[in-house]
Amino acid sequence: SGGVWGLERGYCLMIGGERAVVERLDPVFRTLAPGLGTVPRTPGREKAGGTAEHGYLYCGPSGAGHFVKMVHNGIEYGLMQAYAEGLDIFRNAGSKDLDPDLRYDLDIADIAEVWRRGSVVASWLLDLTAQALVEDPTLSNYTGVVADSGEGRWTIMAAIEEGVPVDVLSASLYVRFRSRQDHTFAEKVLSAMRQKFGGHVERPSGG
Amino acid sequence: SGGVWGLERGYCLMIGGERAVVERLDPVFRTLAPGLGTVPRTPGREKAGGTAEHGYLYCGPSGAGHFVKMVHNGIEYGLMQAYAEGLDIFRNAGSKDLDPDLRYDLDIADIAEVWRRGSVVASWLLDLTAQALVEDPTLSNYTGVVADSGEGRWTIMAAIEEGVPVDVLSASLYVRFRSRQDHTFAEKVLSAMRQKFGGHVERPSGG
Amino acid sequence: SGGVWGLERGYCLMIGGERAVVERLDPVFRTLAPGLGTVPRTPGREKAGGTAEHGYLYCGPSGAGHFVKMVHNGIEYGLMQAYAEGLDIFRNAGSKDLDPDLRYDLDIADIAEVWRRGSVVASWLLDLTAQALVEDPTLSNYTGVVADSGEGRWTIMAAIEEGVPVDVLSASLYVRFRSRQDHTFAEKVLSAMRQKFGGHVERPSGG
Amino acid sequence: SGGVWGLERGYCLMIGGERAVVERLDPVFRTLAPGLGTVPRTPGREKAGGTAEHGYLYCGPSGAGHFVKMVHNGIEYGLMQAYAEGLDIFRNAGSKDLDPDLRYDLDIADIAEVWRRGSVVASWLLDLTAQALVEDPTLSNYTGVVADSGEGRWTIMAAIEEGVPVDVLSASLYVRFRSRQDHTFAEKVLSAMRQKFGGHVERPSGG
Repeated sequence: SGGVWGLERGYCLMIGGERAVVERLDPVFRTLAPGLGTVPRTPGREKAGGTAEHGYLYCGPSGAGHFVKMVHNGIEYGLMQAYAEGLDIFRNAGSKDLDPDLRYDLDIADIAEVWRRGSVVASWLLDLTAQALVEDPTLSNYTGVVADSGEGRWTIMAAIEEGVPVDVLSASLYVRFRSRQDHTFAEKVLSAMRQKFGGHVERPSGG
Repeated sequence: SGGVWGLERGYCLMIGGERAVVERLDPVFRTLAPGLGTVPRTPGREKAGGTAEHGYLYCGPSGAGHFVKMVHNGIEYGLMQAYAEGLDIFRNAGSKDLDPDLRYDLDIADIAEVWRRGSVVASWLLDLTAQALVEDPTLSNYTGVVADSGEGRWTIMAAIEEGVPVDVLSASLYVRFRSRQDHTFAEKVLSAMRQKFGGHVERPSGG
Repeated sequence: SGGVWGLERGYCLMIGGERAVVERLDPVFRTLAPGLGTVPRTPGREKAGGTAEHGYLYCGPSGAGHFVKMVHNGIEYGLMQAYAEGLDIFRNAGSKDLDPDLRYDLDIADIAEVWRRGSVVASWLLDLTAQALVEDPTLSNYTGVVADSGEGRWTIMAAIEEGVPVDVLSASLYVRFRSRQDHTFAEKVLSAMRQKFGGHVERPSGG
Repeated sequence: SGGVWGLERGYCLMIGGERAVVERLDPVFRTLAPGLGTVPRTPGREKAGGTAEHGYLYCGPSGAGHFVKMVHNGIEYGLMQAYAEGLDIFRNAGSKDLDPDLRYDLDIADIAEVWRRGSVVASWLLDLTAQALVEDPTLSNYTGVVADSGEGRWTIMAAIEEGVPVDVLSASLYVRFRSRQDHTFAEKVLSAMRQKFGGHVERPSGG
C-alpha cells in the first residue's frame, strides 16, 4: 500500500492465496517488494526470519491478503484522524472566544516539521502533513470533503462480527461520513427537540 | 429542569447549600416541586422515604445541586443523540445508493408515535420528537445548527477529572460542535493528507 | 417491544409484510396493541391519523418491521449508556483522588427518583433504574457483564451501509463488547508500546 | 519528546517563554536538538526556513511549549489506539465464534513488520510494536492496564474549551480509564436496567 508514492518508496505486499502458488511466485514478490531498504532492522527479528522484513508477506488462504490490507486502511483512517484532531486544537487555540491568557497563536506548519525529528508521533503521514502545511499553512485550498473507501467500512463490520471494540476506527469513519453533508438529519432532530422543549432560538450557521 | 414546559409539567428541583438553610426552606421547595403527581411510585421507594419522589432533593453542600443539574444536562445530550442517530438511519434507509432489496421507505413520524406506547424507548424526549415530526415530517424547518450549554462541557470535564469513561456523552457534545461549522480544520487536514499520499481528487460537497 | 413487562404495560407492534395480509389482520393487531391508554395524545396527531397512536404500525414490506425493531434496540443501547455514564460520574464524584473541595457524596438512588418527576430525562428506562437503585444503591449485586443482541450490531452495520454517522450507538455497543473481557488485546498493545518507548512500569490492575 | 530513546534518537524541543530569552539560548537548543539528521527534507521547507527542521521550535510565550507538547501527547494516544484496535481485529480473526469461512489465522508480528516497509501506516510507534510482537507474539507478558498522563486529559479539556470535536483523542483516553477497572459502575447500571426490563440472566465474565 503506497498510493502514488509506490514507485518511489516501494510498497509492501500483503498476499493471500494457495500456499503452493504463492511460494512458486516468491521470486516475483521479492523483486516487487521494497526489501530491507534503509529501514532499520527490528531488534529480535533476526531470530524470527521470514519474508516480512523484505516487505512482502504471505498472510494465508485466499482473502487473507485483502483482510490484512483492509484493516491496514482502517488503521490509516484512525492515524489520520488523530493528527487531524490535534492540529485542529492548534488551529483554534487563538480563538477570540477564549480567555486572552489562554490563547496561543501557533505556527502549525513548523510544529508538524519539528515533530518529524525524534518525536513519538513521527511517521510518514506526518511527513505528508508537514509538506501540505508548508505549502498552504491554512489548508484553504482543501475542501474538507473526505471520501471513504469500502475498506474502512468493512474493517468496522469485521470488528463487530468479532465483538472487538473499535471506538477510534469507527469515529474516524464517521467523521468522513459527516464531512460529506451540510447537515445530518440527526442534527435536525436535535434542533427540533430543543425547539420543542426549550423554545431555543436557533443560531445561524458558523463559518 | 423543565424548559418552557416547566409551568405545565412542574419541574424537579436539585438543591445544594447549607443543610440547615435548605431544611428551613423545605415548605417552599415542597410547594414549588411537582409532587407525586401521576407518576407511578417506584417499587421499593416506600421504604426509602425522603423527598425525591415529591420532586425535590437536597443534593449536598453548595455546588452539589449545580453538579447534579450539570450531569442531568450531559445525560440529556446523550439521550437526544441516541434518538437522533436512530432516526437518521430511518431517514437514509430509502437511499438510492442502497441495494433496492435493502431499501425501506419509512414514515418516521409514525414510528416515533408508535414507540410512545409501551416501547423500551418511551420518554418525554420521544414525546417531543413525535410532536415535531407530525408537524414537519422531514424537519426541513430546522437548521441542524445545535448550540451547547456550558453544562454539557463541564460534565465531560468532571468525568475526566474523575477518570470515568464517557464515550457517549462526549460524542454527543462533539456532534454539536461539529454542527456549527461548515468544515473543521481537521477535515481539511484529512483532505490534504489524502491529496499528498494518493493524488485523490476531492469530491464536491453533498447536500 | 416490552420485555417481561409486556403484559402489564402492553407493547407496541412494528409490523412488516404484504399490505393486504396486514390489513386483513388489522383487528388482531388492534387487539394486541396497547391502544391510546393513558399516554397523552401528541399535539397535531389528530390530523395525521393512522394506527401509530393505537400502538401498532405497518412499517412496510417483509423485513421493514424487523428493521424498525432493530433500530429501536440500537437506540435503546444508546439511551441506556447515556444514563449509565452520567450515574458513573456521580458514583466517582466522591473519589479520594479528587480535590476535597470538588468532591460530592451523592445519593444516586434519590437523584434517579427526583428526575422521574418533571425532568427532561424522564423515561421508562429511568423508572427501572430508579427501582434498581432503591433496592441496591451500589448495584453490587450486578456483574457489569453486559450481553448484546444481534439487533445492536445490525443497527451499526445498516448505518455504515447508508453512510450515516452513529457515534453514540456504536460506542454503546463497544462498551458491551469491552465489558465481557478482562483485557482486550488492544490494551496489551498499548502496554507493549509504552514499555518499549518509555520504559513505563505497569501499574497493577485496580478494583 | 522521546522517552528513554531520547539519547539515542535525539528528541525534538517545543519551547515557550520570552522571545528574547529563548533567542539568547538558541545555541543551546540547537546543540540539544536532533538536527536535520537522516530525516529527508520536507519539499517546500527550503523556502520557509526557521529552526523546526533542526528539531527545535520556539512556540510562543510562556506556556506555549507545554501546550504544544500536551497536544503531541494527545495525538500519541490516538495513534497508539488506532494501531491497537487494528491488531485486535487480527487477534480475533481466528475466533471460533466466526463462520469458518470467515476466519483467518494471522501472524501479527509479521504483519507489523511488513508494514514497516513502504506502507501508509509506517511510523516509529509501529517500529516499537513490531519489536514487542517479535519478542512476545501474544503479548501475554503485558497486563493491558494502561496509565494516562495529565497531558492526555488536558488535551481534551483544551479542545472542549475551544469547541473542537475530538472523538478519536477522547476515545483513546477513555480506553485507558476503562483498562484500569474490573467493571465500571456504568456497566453495572446497564446490567441492572437489563435485569429490570427483560429479566435477562447475566452471563459470567469472559476471559
